[in-house]
Amino acid sequence: MERIALFPGSFDPFTKGHLDIVMRSISLFDKVIIGIGKNSNKSRYFPLEFIETKIKGVFKDFPQVSVESYEGFTADFAKRRDAKFIIRGLRNTTDFEYECGIAQANKFLWNEMETIFLITSPELAALSSSIIRDLHRYGAKADHFLPYELDYPTK
Amino acid sequence: MERIALFPGSFDPFTKGHLDIVMRSISLFDKVIIGIGKNSNKSRYFPLEFIETKIKGVFKDFPQVSVESYEGFTADFAKRRDAKFIIRGLRNTTDFEYECGIAQANKFLWNEMETIFLITSPELAALSSSIIRDLHRYGAKADHFLPYELDYPTK
Amino acid sequence: MERIALFPGSFDPFTKGHLDIVMRSISLFDKVIIGIGKNSNKSRYFPLEFIETKIKGVFKDFPQVSVESYEGFTADFAKRRDAKFIIRGLRNTTDFEYECGIAQANKFLWNEMETIFLITSPELAALSSSIIRDLHRYGAKADHFLPYELDYPTK
Amino acid sequence: MERIALFPGSFDPFTKGHLDIVMRSISLFDKVIIGIGKNSNKSRYFPLEFIETKIKGVFKDFPQVSVESYEGFTADFAKRRDAKFIIRGLRNTTDFEYECGIAQANKFLWNEMETIFLITSPELAALSSSIIRDLHRYGAKADHFLPYELDYPTK
Amino acid sequence: MERIALFPGSFDPFTKGHLDIVMRSISLFDKVIIGIGKNSNKSRYFPLEFIETKIKGVFKDFPQVSVESYEGFTADFAKRRDAKFIIRGLRNTTDFEYECGIAQANKFLWNEMETIFLITSPELAALSSSIIRDLHRYGAKADHFLPYELDYPTK
Amino acid sequence: MERIALFPGSFDPFTKGHLDIVMRSISLFDKVIIGIGKNSNKSRYFPLEFIETKIKGVFKDFPQVSVESYEGFTADFAKRRDAKFIIRGLRNTTDFEYECGIAQANKFLWNEMETIFLITSPELAALSSSIIRDLHRYGAKADHFLPYELDYPTK
Repeated sequence: MERIALFPGSFDPFTKGHLDIVMRSISLFDKVIIGIGKNSNKSRYFPLEFIETKIKGVFKDFPQVSVESYEGFTADFAKRRDAKFIIRGLRNTTDFEYECGIAQANKFLWNEMETIFLITSPELAALSSSIIRDLHRYGAKADHFLPYELDYPTK
Repeated sequence: MERIALFPGSFDPFTKGHLDIVMRSISLFDKVIIGIGKNSNKSRYFPLEFIETKIKGVFKDFPQVSVESYEGFTADFAKRRDAKFIIRGLRNTTDFEYECGIAQANKFLWNEMETIFLITSPELAALSSSIIRDLHRYGAKADHFLPYELDYPTK
Repeated sequence: MERIALFPGSFDPFTKGHLDIVMRSISLFDKVIIGIGKNSNKSRYFPLEFIETKIKGVFKDFPQVSVESYEGFTADFAKRRDAKFIIRGLRNTTDFEYECGIAQANKFLWNEMETIFLITSPELAALSSSIIRDLHRYGAKADHFLPYELDYPTK
Repeated sequence: MERIALFPGSFDPFTKGHLDIVMRSISLFDKVIIGIGKNSNKSRYFPLEFIETKIKGVFKDFPQVSVESYEGFTADFAKRRDAKFIIRGLRNTTDFEYECGIAQANKFLWNEMETIFLITSPELAALSSSIIRDLHRYGAKADHFLPYELDYPTK
Repeated sequence: MERIALFPGSFDPFTKGHLDIVMRSISLFDKVIIGIGKNSNKSRYFPLEFIETKIKGVFKDFPQVSVESYEGFTADFAKRRDAKFIIRGLRNTTDFEYECGIAQANKFLWNEMETIFLITSPELAALSSSIIRDLHRYGAKADHFLPYELDYPTK
Repeated sequence: MERIALFPGSFDPFTKGHLDIVMRSISLFDKVIIGIGKNSNKSRYFPLEFIETKIKGVFKDFPQVSVESYEGFTADFAKRRDAKFIIRGLRNTTDFEYECGIAQANKFLWNEMETIFLITSPELAALSSSIIRDLHRYGAKADHFLPYELDYPTK
């Protein structure tokens, strides 16, 4: 049986913290799908297509990693891809309590689903996509926190 | 490459909470080793041999699960068994912060080591080995929380 | 002296987690008022009247439980109903710290007011109204988490 | 039906933080029993009889408050006294997660038991019996934190 | 070398909790700048000019305390004022984890920057600007929580 | 007025995490006293004199940093040294809630005392003296985590 995992997120943008979680998951799974969730309720800062292209570039030499976007429930998308495992990174206790609820809802939607947590590497734990967006918004260079060049105009 | 995981603990005693974590790990790994740590600094309530026999009984129909005791560092034992993954259950934020330190120390001792966390099923999250010991100490029946009969005399 | 308690919330929607708190409060108080707060700053997903009817149905055989909606401060509404006790459920540490501030503000507004906390039963602790709204929004059946049939059209 | 509550603890010593919880519970219950638990595993700093006398003095004008010591499970003592409610004070998130486990174990031992939480008044939240013991041990006057005179010789 | 500290915030409004932090910082620094951040993404409840005037009134007898508003990054404003220290108050663990991320981002933007934390005095810890806004919005008198008269019309 | 700070701890042993806090405090204070607390209730793993010598070696080129041991209350020792500031590092929320109680007790003992917190640098946050003791106990080299050579025989 192939072990397929989904790493879902809005990745607005994808950071070195996310990269850390994917790289550490590779030895555990046969395939890792990075799923960019489209949430109709929340508007993005960086366009989905821009980020999808960037992430694909980061993993171009890793055939076991694929990148896709999806709408609707994470559990439904995982089921369509036969991905029984969801990977999530935990940075702190606020993340932990938030993820408890999500993991239980996903298990309710698809009982075979299992959520696997990795603790974010400590030097990356304070990093968040929202801080990167703030840096970009005010014109500061955020490339240090990203595994690609953020060649996107400041709004 | 075979994916071997170590589930370490003092298991004083092994509870349905621990069983939950092992059963959910089975689909993720080729082998799961339940490692009962001997800590020379801390005395046990239930003898190690008694618990080891009980756990072996629980998993007698699961050839991919083995039970062993070990001394010294968890990371060293994992290395000797070629187990690159450590499995830990998280019940709450107190667990989370404690495990952060342990995971980083293990990674320092053996850099290839990865700690994988599962969130304990909610109906078992309040359960702890120390509560079972209290129940047993005062003569209350604790079998409801255990995957085997606790036929051990009250001290 | 009659002991009257108010269980306030937006109940958008009322879940089995809320039911658990009310049922466990019944033996402690002579009357329990379920107060649906109208917050002019926040728009609801399910109409207040729809939810109010559903909750009334759930408690139709419990004469000591009543259901009302209110505007303005919870402490003011409690005072008008002579309800000296506020009941709140705690699911996790995030809830706990949020509730600390609210309880102190209520006590400031009416010094005789006392907030009483129950810890949500563990199998319901991961459940939240916001998860139910997500399930409903994407057309998934959420009735398993609710003490009534959610016969409301998906938006 | 009379509503009887048990406020259990080791009270080593009983502080103004404990007094705060008892005084705020009085309007909620018909009787409040302060139960000083004897834990054979843990030695006390202040003798149980000394503390019991002090607490009785504090509540001598409150006929609805009684003080007793007990051995064994809190739930068993509560059952013998027909006290269906346990009262606990919460100071912070560490308390909260500890109490979750205890409350569930008590409910397992006696299913009708309900644990009621009050949040400790903020100006008393940092206060703990262990800090009082440290103050006393080094000869500092701790009476400011206590609802009685601590006329006990420094060890 | 003069030690200059920046105490940044939206101060919507400035409360006795903020006053507590500033007063306790005065002995530690030669100058304290209270910086009211203008965040173009978030609209204020009380106008910035109204609050700036009120804060200036509070500190009119403290020549070492100044009040300014700023746009953009806190770290950039601090650098322009040669303020190597940022002061922040911590009320609870939710604050703590939020501040960890902000402090690291500020250090990234200006490496010499150091964030200094004080724990909010316990009797003020439950107080927040958002509770004051709610009190004001519904016409309740919030002056008890403020170091000045809040003579601003209810919206 | 000279600003003198005390950095108290048991330093069993002193780690790079402690060094980080001292180095970041130097620009804030005129003098920093590293105070090694002797706690008669708790036995040490590394002898106090051994550690004191090691810490003195680390700071031999920093005349503003001194190292002393003390008995009794931290607040009393601080008062004798005219150190109005206590410095503490915060690694996580467990540390935070523990320190809240200690800071309030110190302020009770000496009202002019102020405790200043720094958040431990993230790459050092998982490090603790107790992990170093475990590494040493089992013969693993822990020098990577220490700012000096740990030439002390394994017990």
